[in-house]
Amino acid sequence: MSFFSSTNHNQKDIDKVINTKLSTNGKALYLAQDQGLEHGVYEFDNSSINPEHVFTIAEKGEVDAFICQKGLAEKYASSYKTNIILKVNGKTAIRKHDEPYSAITCSVKRAVELGAKAIGFTNFVGSQHEAKIFDDFRKIQEEAHDYGFPVTSWMYPRGEAITSDTDAEVLQYSARVGLELGADMLKMKYNGNPEDMKKQIACGGRAKMLMAGGNKTNSTDEFLKQVEEVNNCGAFGFAVGRNIWQHEQPIEVTKAIRDVQIRGLSIQDAMKRLKSEFEITNVSIPDSVDSNEETENKNFPPIPPQN
Amino acid sequence: MSFFSSTNHNQKDIDKVINTKLSTNGKALYLAQDQGLEHGVYEFDNSSINPEHVFTIAEKGEVDAFICQKGLAEKYASSYKTNIILKVNGKTAIRKHDEPYSAITCSVKRAVELGAKAIGFTNFVGSQHEAKIFDDFRKIQEEAHDYGFPVTSWMYPRGEAITSDTDAEVLQYSARVGLELGADMLKMKYNGNPEDMKKQIACGGRAKMLMAGGNKTNSTDEFLKQVEEVNNCGAFGFAVGRNIWQHEQPIEVTKAIRDVQIRGLSIQDAMKRLKSEFEITNVSIPDSVDSNEETENKNFPPIPPQN
Amino acid sequence: MSFFSSTNHNQKDIDKVINTKLSTNGKALYLAQDQGLEHGVYEFDNSSINPEHVFTIAEKGEVDAFICQKGLAEKYASSYKTNIILKVNGKTAIRKHDEPYSAITCSVKRAVELGAKAIGFTNFVGSQHEAKIFDDFRKIQEEAHDYGFPVTSWMYPRGEAITSDTDAEVLQYSARVGLELGADMLKMKYNGNPEDMKKQIACGGRAKMLMAGGNKTNSTDEFLKQVEEVNNCGAFGFAVGRNIWQHEQPIEVTKAIRDVQIRGLSIQDAMKRLKSEFEITNVSIPDSVDSNEETENKNFPPIPPQN
Amino acid sequence: MSFFSSTNHNQKDIDKVINTKLSTNGKALYLAQDQGLEHGVYEFDNSSINPEHVFTIAEKGEVDAFICQKGLAEKYASSYKTNIILKVNGKTAIRKHDEPYSAITCSVKRAVELGAKAIGFTNFVGSQHEAKIFDDFRKIQEEAHDYGFPVTSWMYPRGEAITSDTDAEVLQYSARVGLELGADMLKMKYNGNPEDMKKQIACGGRAKMLMAGGNKTNSTDEFLKQVEEVNNCGAFGFAVGRNIWQHEQPIEVTKAIRDVQIRGLSIQDAMKRLKSEFEITNVSIPDSVDSNEETENKNFPPIPPQN
Amino acid sequence: MSFFSSTNHNQKDIDKVINTKLSTNGKALYLAQDQGLEHGVYEFDNSSINPEHVFTIAEKGEVDAFICQKGLAEKYASSYKTNIILKVNGKTAIRKHDEPYSAITCSVKRAVELGAKAIGFTNFVGSQHEAKIFDDFRKIQEEAHDYGFPVTSWMYPRGEAITSDTDAEVLQYSARVGLELGADMLKMKYNGNPEDMKKQIACGGRAKMLMAGGNKTNSTDEFLKQVEEVNNCGAFGFAVGRNIWQHEQPIEVTKAIRDVQIRGLSIQDAMKRLKSEFEITNVSIPDSVDSNEETENKNFPPIPPQN
Repeated sequence: MSFFSSTNHNQKDIDKVINTKLSTNGKALYLAQDQGLEHGVYEFDNSSINPEHVFTIAEKGEVDAFICQKGLAEKYASSYKTNIILKVNGKTAIRKHDEPYSAITCSVKRAVELGAKAIGFTNFVGSQHEAKIFDDFRKIQEEAHDYGFPVTSWMYPRGEAITSDTDAEVLQYSARVGLELGADMLKMKYNGNPEDMKKQIACGGRAKMLMAGGNKTNSTDEFLKQVEEVNNCGAFGFAVGRNIWQHEQPIEVTKAIRDVQIRGLSIQDAMKRLKSEFEITNVSIPDSVDSNEETENKNFPPIPPQN
Repeated sequence: MSFFSSTNHNQKDIDKVINTKLSTNGKALYLAQDQGLEHGVYEFDNSSINPEHVFTIAEKGEVDAFICQKGLAEKYASSYKTNIILKVNGKTAIRKHDEPYSAITCSVKRAVELGAKAIGFTNFVGSQHEAKIFDDFRKIQEEAHDYGFPVTSWMYPRGEAITSDTDAEVLQYSARVGLELGADMLKMKYNGNPEDMKKQIACGGRAKMLMAGGNKTNSTDEFLKQVEEVNNCGAFGFAVGRNIWQHEQPIEVTKAIRDVQIRGLSIQDAMKRLKSEFEITNVSIPDSVDSNEETENKNFPPIPPQN
Repeated sequence: MSFFSSTNHNQKDIDKVINTKLSTNGKALYLAQDQGLEHGVYEFDNSSINPEHVFTIAEKGEVDAFICQKGLAEKYASSYKTNIILKVNGKTAIRKHDEPYSAITCSVKRAVELGAKAIGFTNFVGSQHEAKIFDDFRKIQEEAHDYGFPVTSWMYPRGEAITSDTDAEVLQYSARVGLELGADMLKMKYNGNPEDMKKQIACGGRAKMLMAGGNKTNSTDEFLKQVEEVNNCGAFGFAVGRNIWQHEQPIEVTKAIRDVQIRGLSIQDAMKRLKSEFEITNVSIPDSVDSNEETENKNFPPIPPQN
Repeated sequence: MSFFSSTNHNQKDIDKVINTKLSTNGKALYLAQDQGLEHGVYEFDNSSINPEHVFTIAEKGEVDAFICQKGLAEKYASSYKTNIILKVNGKTAIRKHDEPYSAITCSVKRAVELGAKAIGFTNFVGSQHEAKIFDDFRKIQEEAHDYGFPVTSWMYPRGEAITSDTDAEVLQYSARVGLELGADMLKMKYNGNPEDMKKQIACGGRAKMLMAGGNKTNSTDEFLKQVEEVNNCGAFGFAVGRNIWQHEQPIEVTKAIRDVQIRGLSIQDAMKRLKSEFEITNVSIPDSVDSNEETENKNFPPIPPQN
Repeated sequence: MSFFSSTNHNQKDIDKVINTKLSTNGKALYLAQDQGLEHGVYEFDNSSINPEHVFTIAEKGEVDAFICQKGLAEKYASSYKTNIILKVNGKTAIRKHDEPYSAITCSVKRAVELGAKAIGFTNFVGSQHEAKIFDDFRKIQEEAHDYGFPVTSWMYPRGEAITSDTDAEVLQYSARVGLELGADMLKMKYNGNPEDMKKQIACGGRAKMLMAGGNKTNSTDEFLKQVEEVNNCGAFGFAVGRNIWQHEQPIEVTKAIRDVQIRGLSIQDAMKRLKSEFEITNVSIPDSVDSNEETENKNFPPIPPQN
């Protein structure tokens, strides 16, 4: 069904893509925005609703890649230099999904044609639909590897048998499942316990661990603390959404994460630098602004011209 | 499975089709008739039951495209100059569909062979069948884009979690889903609140917003008022069915919409012109007329000769 | 999946097949026998159980085509000159089917290889399985059209929402569905009201209407009366089974239908001719006869030699 | 999906295979053993558990073909001269199947590569899964015919609407279904009434009737009596399993069936010959014998050496 | 869908692979580790969690093959000389599976590209999903055989009709099912009764029997006793996981199995040799060790460096 660049499947080539194109000094930072599909538009404010705004953060924040669905990649990505990790499955939150399944929303072939550098896929381990999900994953993973594309798997435990999706053993089991199924990177929750994260990373073996950013934390300090802890556990990197684009200083916080992750700055120093940088770069993102902003519907973007 | 005109998927080429072939002065007006499948024949009167009648309205009303199912395209479209947007999924209303799913009724390949200019597809977001619908949409959208065809998605919230399909947030969420999944145009309801529509348009981003015409309004004024409001919100255009072909002056009302949408006429001026034009063009549509019309079954068309 | 005679899909070519090969003077008469699958063998008597008998009626009665399932086409059709319309889906009546679905029983490719001239397909509109049925129909209809084959659709309303499958509006809606889905001919019930049939025909538009023969009527007069009425409504033709092969004068009654349908004979004149013809052709069909016929199982055919 | 020996589908060629390769003097006798999958190993004794034993019976008994599943064909058939009819669907009896469905266990392509001469397939008419079964059958039957392979269909009525699977009308209906779906041979039960069987054969038309051997009868006489009756009804042949390989004189009983079926011997004469032959051929089948046989697990075969 | 090395399917070539590459002196010993997917990480200790550790056991223990899922094969196998049997379906234990189904986790094509020597597949006979499982197995088995690859089938009885999965008759039936479906090797439980195992082996015919190692036994003696018994029954070999890699002397116990299986040592002698070897090879496996080991989370491996 697919045309191959090569039939010589080679994990080394795939690892090389991760190491040379999707990381910096052996560590990865990805900006993610698929909440418009997964959660709903209540997540967005006047700026973040506009994909141009978020792409600009990705580009100016110099993240290793931007994670998004096909529609954003098609309509916006060509204007920006940031690498794309194309999320190829998803669902809405309109209906409650106790036993979730995410439909395939983009073929690997199309992701390749759109110039993406890697594939993102959500595995809901434990869901009633696990078999169908694994079946999808196999096809996606193998076709991606045929193209020499790395595959990042969201390893999310779900379903009636899961009482807590941050239970240490459940997370560790999920990491191992990701490794055995053939994921190259695992995007997973951090449950706040560094020892648990170390085991989680060990269970994932040679599949590299990415901490999922999750809900916006109460303070920047709190989030950077998590970054520092998980980085110290040996994680490969971070896939962050709301803690960046819901932040009032999205580019600066991106740089602060890097300061902690790569440059070894303490949280105090990173925070200090964040505040000083703010003075300089604060106005650099072309917000969508027009007169409507003064209305009571302020938290939504103005209408961009169409055509 | 498909043969490609080109493997170089290019959103710019697709946008160009919309801008050069499927709009006028950057604004679109489409006439739609798939109610014979979706709603039942009670929607039709003696004239509108006859596809020749409705194709004639499309042609003489100079709409940018006529939206219909495959059967009408195959059997009638070659006689008319109007562009076709081929609706490729659908269902009947015989059985009640609280959690609707529309079957694929036309392949993209066939739509291309029939000379259509774009594809229409209904996404019922929130339906129990959402995953299957998204799966269908992905295949249709990607094959259409492979051919360089724009895709218009009906973004209709449905299912047990939807209490109102005109709820502002639900509509805005649905618009965003359309964008993220890769629709090029979104055909959606207008809930009557211009501020909500502005947000809805913003949520759709670079996917262009088309207002769905919906039920016939009580008066022409009322409908033109909606057109004016939504146009002022920045919408790309209108996909109208019953408010045109159930109108006693279908061609004239089409022109009146254009007067408001493109020529900037006030509703009063558009209405004035509508009434004067009526004098001239009233008899221009070749109605199916024969002696049976005088029977009590007047609201149905006479029998066309077969063979 | 299919090999094409041509990729230039052309409705005109398909209509030409109907007009030149599957009708006489612009009117069609088809003999149908798939009741052995759909209803059970209780429909058959000593003669009609034998497909050779029924093929002979088709040939000698000079109908425009014989409608049957693949098995009969494979094993009998090559011995007869009659055109075949191959019915490509079906089910048994062993299990009760309130929400019916008919499996595909023959591929279009095989129908073509067997020399059939058109495809027959049952659409149960309103059935719980409507989406799957429409999906099947799309594939069958498109592949048939790729080969230049007309498609006849049985448009049968079914399912929990249908209280009567001869309700006028339901029949008219079903006719329209057939048109919009791309059927070329519609095989449908006649509810006995000519005005309803006229509307039904109008709803079908350029898809040609065939009256389904249905159960054997109480008298030949009664059936010919239906033929006359429906023909006068403008129907394209008739697809008749039991009213021919359960008739004691199957060939003569076939000619009587033609007399009414094409030659404009009154029912009285047609009946007169039927009775006189009977004298001449009565013994022309090679019935399966042997000594067993005198047993009490008289209404079943004798055992044909095997191999 | 398949490669064709020829696209000229020709029923005559298929019939020729049956007449020249799969029958003797116009009558067929097949030995069947798929009970290891369908029923369980309790059907087997120390000898019949070993496929080598049963293949030897087939070869020495000179049956027209041996019916088995793919595994036996792959691992044993190449050592024997007997033709294979490959049974391509099946299920276990571990779970109770009131509404049975048999999975496809062998592709037609593989059956062809293994040198089989025909295909066997079970149609459970009336089962809740009838549509899926018919769908499978269509694909199998058409691919087999593409290769010029005859198809034998087990026509077994099943499901909640079936009160007795030996009801005459149900059997006759099932035979007709087999004919209409395109089976070339029908393997069916005999309900013990010759007049019913005659009708059953007539309902099957040009699809040839094979009586299914069924459970081992109480005596050889009783079984030969069935053979004589059904043969006299005009049946094409017999597909026998347990009445041969559970018989203490499997080869001799095979020859006795032939005596009755082809040579026109009376049951008394066939029984006489069976008993005299027994003296000569009794030890001709290489039973698996070793010292373990003296244990209490006598009714199971000794362990064959592996590798 | 697959490309063939040859269309001449030949069981002899497949048997040759087993005899020349996947066994030693006609007997097989495989090390298995897919418990990380099937059971959860609680099965692992500080060493066995690391696939490098287990691959090293396989290599140094000189087993005939290592059985694992695709992910381990992709990311670790190229560094080791051990043959791979790629397990191509699986599921997690997060959700309880009374009627289990294992999704396909690796295509045959990919297994071939990864250099595997054979395919592993779990058949849950009796499960509610048996038909889907058999359908999967047919495709996998046939594609594997097209490549000349042997197929090992886990024959595991499951579902509501199974009261004990070590019931002798159920095991024997399952073995026969494996043979009839076309498995080349059967991985099955030993119920502790040698006479039952002999029958089980006989039921499997020319499909070779492998005993599944199962839970870690209480003592090494106990496990070696099983090995001796089953080997004496004529089994082809053993597929062992936890009884090797949960053993404190994994390499030595591997050699002890071989001593019993191939070299005919008594259990006493094998145990003696095991204990003496221990002195020499005890430190030969490069355990993942670092300072974290002194923490309370000792039973988990330290964090390997990533990239």
